[in-house]
Amino acid sequence: MANSPSGDSMTDRLVRILETFTPTRTVQTAAEIARRAGLPDSTAHRIVGELVATGLLERDDDRRVRVGMRLWELATRSSRALRLRQVALPYMERVQARVREHTQLAIREQDEALFLERLSDPASGANVTRIAGRLPLHASSSGLVLLAHAETDVQERVLSAPLRAMSPHTLVDPATLRRKLAEVRRLGHAAAPGYIESVSTGVAVPIRERTGEVVAALSVVLPRDAPIEQPLAELRRAAVDIEVALDPPPIERVSVPAERR
Amino acid sequence: MANSPSGDSMTDRLVRILETFTPTRTVQTAAEIARRAGLPDSTAHRIVGELVATGLLERDDDRRVRVGMRLWELATRSSRALRLRQVALPYMERVQARVREHTQLAIREQDEALFLERLSDPASGANVTRIAGRLPLHASSSGLVLLAHAETDVQERVLSAPLRAMSPHTLVDPATLRRKLAEVRRLGHAAAPGYIESVSTGVAVPIRERTGEVVAALSVVLPRDAPIEQPLAELRRAAVDIEVALDPPPIERVSVPAERR
Repeated sequence: MANSPSGDSMTDRLVRILETFTPTRTVQTAAEIARRAGLPDSTAHRIVGELVATGLLERDDDRRVRVGMRLWELATRSSRALRLRQVALPYMERVQARVREHTQLAIREQDEALFLERLSDPASGANVTRIAGRLPLHASSSGLVLLAHAETDVQERVLSAPLRAMSPHTLVDPATLRRKLAEVRRLGHAAAPGYIESVSTGVAVPIRERTGEVVAALSVVLPRDAPIEQPLAELRRAAVDIEVALDPPPIERVSVPAERR
Repeated sequence: MANSPSGDSMTDRLVRILETFTPTRTVQTAAEIARRAGLPDSTAHRIVGELVATGLLERDDDRRVRVGMRLWELATRSSRALRLRQVALPYMERVQARVREHTQLAIREQDEALFLERLSDPASGANVTRIAGRLPLHASSSGLVLLAHAETDVQERVLSAPLRAMSPHTLVDPATLRRKLAEVRRLGHAAAPGYIESVSTGVAVPIRERTGEVVAALSVVLPRDAPIEQPLAELRRAAVDIEVALDPPPIERVSVPAERR
């Protein structure tokens, strides 16, 4: 996870407090928040009190706090995350119904892949992805698609930073990664066999705006040695449908809507 | 929508700024935010600048701002909204596949029904519900279920406040509404024929924790005169499955997981 800047505006302190809540740490005391956010106890208590008063945090019967529904509401109702995910969901469900593993939607955020949605079959294999969780751009198939189509300065920044090995198969050599990104652009998809977990293969395709700019990656996570051809075809079909749904051509909207479903 | 308290802590100002973003107003200038939040221009500019610096808001090429992916991530990754919605989604999809109208999940927040998820068929009828949007407790079928099972003080507060008519059929008389709430508890579901829009009927059932406490409402929105029996049976089946999935009995987890699907 990225850290917030070390400034000490109220906004910085707020971010540091919110960052202490994670998928596996959903409830904390104000003292725990203070310690984890690196804030004086009195400061943390005061801000937590304010956040509880406005509903951005919620306090339970044990006076422990969690992220409030009100914050989720305010962060979600106008967000690009919601719109992308709403448009993509029916097509993700189609991929999921046909591939029956994991189907995911990600964007690039602060030089990582941020996952907006994940659908999974109860019988499907290993997958570390979480909704509102992140994976490194250089390791996940979604990240590779997003990185391959990012601005040059983003690519250079990622390639020049330490490339962490998530598994023995993660590409951690900048020259190898550079060739991989060229391959992703050439093939129109990214395959990441074992890059995140040795037992699984991610396959991802870009979602483009009408301008051609890549705004998201759609991916499936398969067992390591599963054939990728049929899942890839499903992903490519879904990508076309999502791109049309994001920005429907006026003439098609009028004349042949049924064919798009 | 509820307003934030009129205090002027930094948190209050933050909430007032976030509240200016809505599903239909996703991008604003700092000056527009200042006006709509009732803040001095300089204050709004400074706070918006801080929020952009931390990624909680994002600025586009025209220097207009929108809610940031970072805020969505921090508000979502540890939230009760995400967990409830994740657990419910497969069963909502089953309802949706069989009823093919609108399927929705709501909780009670600040004396309104807050919607966490909505699935819709492209051919389905009218429905004003939005994800991360709200409807009055006394008018929507989800709200009636949530209100019928709320603490007495919540019921009294709602019943003593003005009851706004969303349509000519909304129950706006406190005594009538009180009888309706008793009916909802007795029948185990709420039907709201035309209460929100004259052309549609909402039907909702409670989702309970193991303690029996109602934590959410699952609903469908049907055309006004559609029969409700089959959709209601689907909702009740899904409610059982969601309740088990939220808090699986240990023995069942071991012995018969397949039957739960």
